[in-house]
Amino acid sequence: MNELLQYFQRELPGINDFLESEAEKLNGLVRDVAKHILGSGGKRIRPMLTLLFARSLGYAKDDYHAIACSLELLHSATLLHDDYLDDAEIRRGRTASHLLFGRTETILAGDALLALANEMGARYGNARLSWLLAKGIMETAVGEIEEIEFSRAPSLDREAYMGIIIGKTARLIECACRCGAALAGATPEQEDAAGEYGLNLGIAFQLVDDALDYASPASETGKPEGGDLREGKVTLPLILLMEQGEEAGSEALLEALRDGSLSPERHASLLALVREGGYPEETRAEAARFVAKAKACLTPFGSGEEVTVLGQAADFVLTRTK
Amino acid sequence: MNELLQYFQRELPGINDFLESEAEKLNGLVRDVAKHILGSGGKRIRPMLTLLFARSLGYAKDDYHAIACSLELLHSATLLHDDYLDDAEIRRGRTASHLLFGRTETILAGDALLALANEMGARYGNARLSWLLAKGIMETAVGEIEEIEFSRAPSLDREAYMGIIIGKTARLIECACRCGAALAGATPEQEDAAGEYGLNLGIAFQLVDDALDYASPASETGKPEGGDLREGKVTLPLILLMEQGEEAGSEALLEALRDGSLSPERHASLLALVREGGYPEETRAEAARFVAKAKACLTPFGSGEEVTVLGQAADFVLTRTK
Repeated sequence: MNELLQYFQRELPGINDFLESEAEKLNGLVRDVAKHILGSGGKRIRPMLTLLFARSLGYAKDDYHAIACSLELLHSATLLHDDYLDDAEIRRGRTASHLLFGRTETILAGDALLALANEMGARYGNARLSWLLAKGIMETAVGEIEEIEFSRAPSLDREAYMGIIIGKTARLIECACRCGAALAGATPEQEDAAGEYGLNLGIAFQLVDDALDYASPASETGKPEGGDLREGKVTLPLILLMEQGEEAGSEALLEALRDGSLSPERHASLLALVREGGYPEETRAEAARFVAKAKACLTPFGSGEEVTVLGQAADFVLTRTK
Repeated sequence: MNELLQYFQRELPGINDFLESEAEKLNGLVRDVAKHILGSGGKRIRPMLTLLFARSLGYAKDDYHAIACSLELLHSATLLHDDYLDDAEIRRGRTASHLLFGRTETILAGDALLALANEMGARYGNARLSWLLAKGIMETAVGEIEEIEFSRAPSLDREAYMGIIIGKTARLIECACRCGAALAGATPEQEDAAGEYGLNLGIAFQLVDDALDYASPASETGKPEGGDLREGKVTLPLILLMEQGEEAGSEALLEALRDGSLSPERHASLLALVREGGYPEETRAEAARFVAKAKACLTPFGSGEEVTVLGQAADFVLTRTK
């Protein structure tokens, strides 16, 4: 993991500076919201992936920040609207923006970050890049809508769950990878390979996230323990438990999740059953299969430093504990 | 006005059909919100302007609907978020979307329409078009933010007011005109002339809107009478009244507008003073100056049917009574 760490250490300051300078230019009503969400310790996975794919295809220019950071802004815009609509109280261990800055500031900051993301991508005068970004924005909006729809009518259907995590997480990571390839003038085959890496990595990333929500103590994740279950979100660890048939009454459970009427006792007992059954670990094993698929997509990119880092990044998704 | 009417009659069904078919494809959670806002009788000025400039520069293809309609979707997206954040009850004489469909549906429909607008513009693989649209989206977001900032700290400064109406209305109309020119492969000079026509027309359009708010009975506009004043919005008719010095105590007035503490008696008396002073008419006279500027921008486009219609459209802005 040495190369991964070095690459991030070298590139992250430039990415963070660029994000900060763009946020600084925003109108005063929304500037602090933007700085709050951007400064709350995101992993900058999306910008790094854009950069890594551009470089792995030989892109040597230093003007990659705008397109790389656009995906991070887009992701942040989504978080702002999502947290507001979810009435979330916490984001990355800090008070959610709408509680600190108000609903108007938060909604408008989301709009402004989305607009800025799109504008940053259009600066290159590269029609393919603009198309990829427009598609990524559309898919993200659709993913957001489908997730809320799913939470209102949750099911224990694994295929539906996979559709949700692709829409809410993986498509945007795919987009980040494709944008890097497109910036470097990739062939359609190269861009597709980059996109497939991103899609599989994104799925793995979300699976690990969903596993962590059951497995990790709140002190490590900065999120309330068993938060997904408390919020009525059906994720793979719960689906795996219910698939075992060990827990009867899935209809009643789905109803309680939908209505938000899950009792604290039932919450605690489900959390314990999921942990005892090893379903967070099984979810991680599923993630490992997608990581393997992602790494297989790297073959056409040769064996340079960036490809090594991309391989390590895929492995890293599996090892994180928060 | 015969050519204008005929042109609209010929083209509007195609534009409305396209808008409806795009809205129909949206996810069920937001589809009805989109259909409600798109079906509430907008004037379709933006799509028509895109078409008119494309045709006036000799664009003969029939694939103009996506870019023309993208500006209408973008405008509708803004209305959805604005009305929700303003707690507006009425839009174009109909119940505002957030009251009919809920806040989640309305915010997400705004996000989806914005994303769709952007994606529709990117379909052409034309980098200039994508750039113009990205810039238009950014300017619209900024305009929205500045308007809300202005309403929280209103001033009677005419320059500030002009900045607000440019941001909230005129930039997007400028964008519609520029997109039409860009679709037709315009020279930079042609695109600038189209943009300047749009900017001036947009200013005139908003001035007339602000005049109507004071001058027209609610039965004609479908909006509450003197609604801007009631909502604490400072517009030109009020600025003109205060500039005359006939009304003392502008500080107290601004405070009442900011706090929403204007008494019904004071509201009625200000409304009467603005009307008696002829300030709605003076605002229209100001609009007429911008219409003249807009028409002067049409010279480079020759004298075809579309140029005639564009001239009539500029005049029409002044004649409307609702």
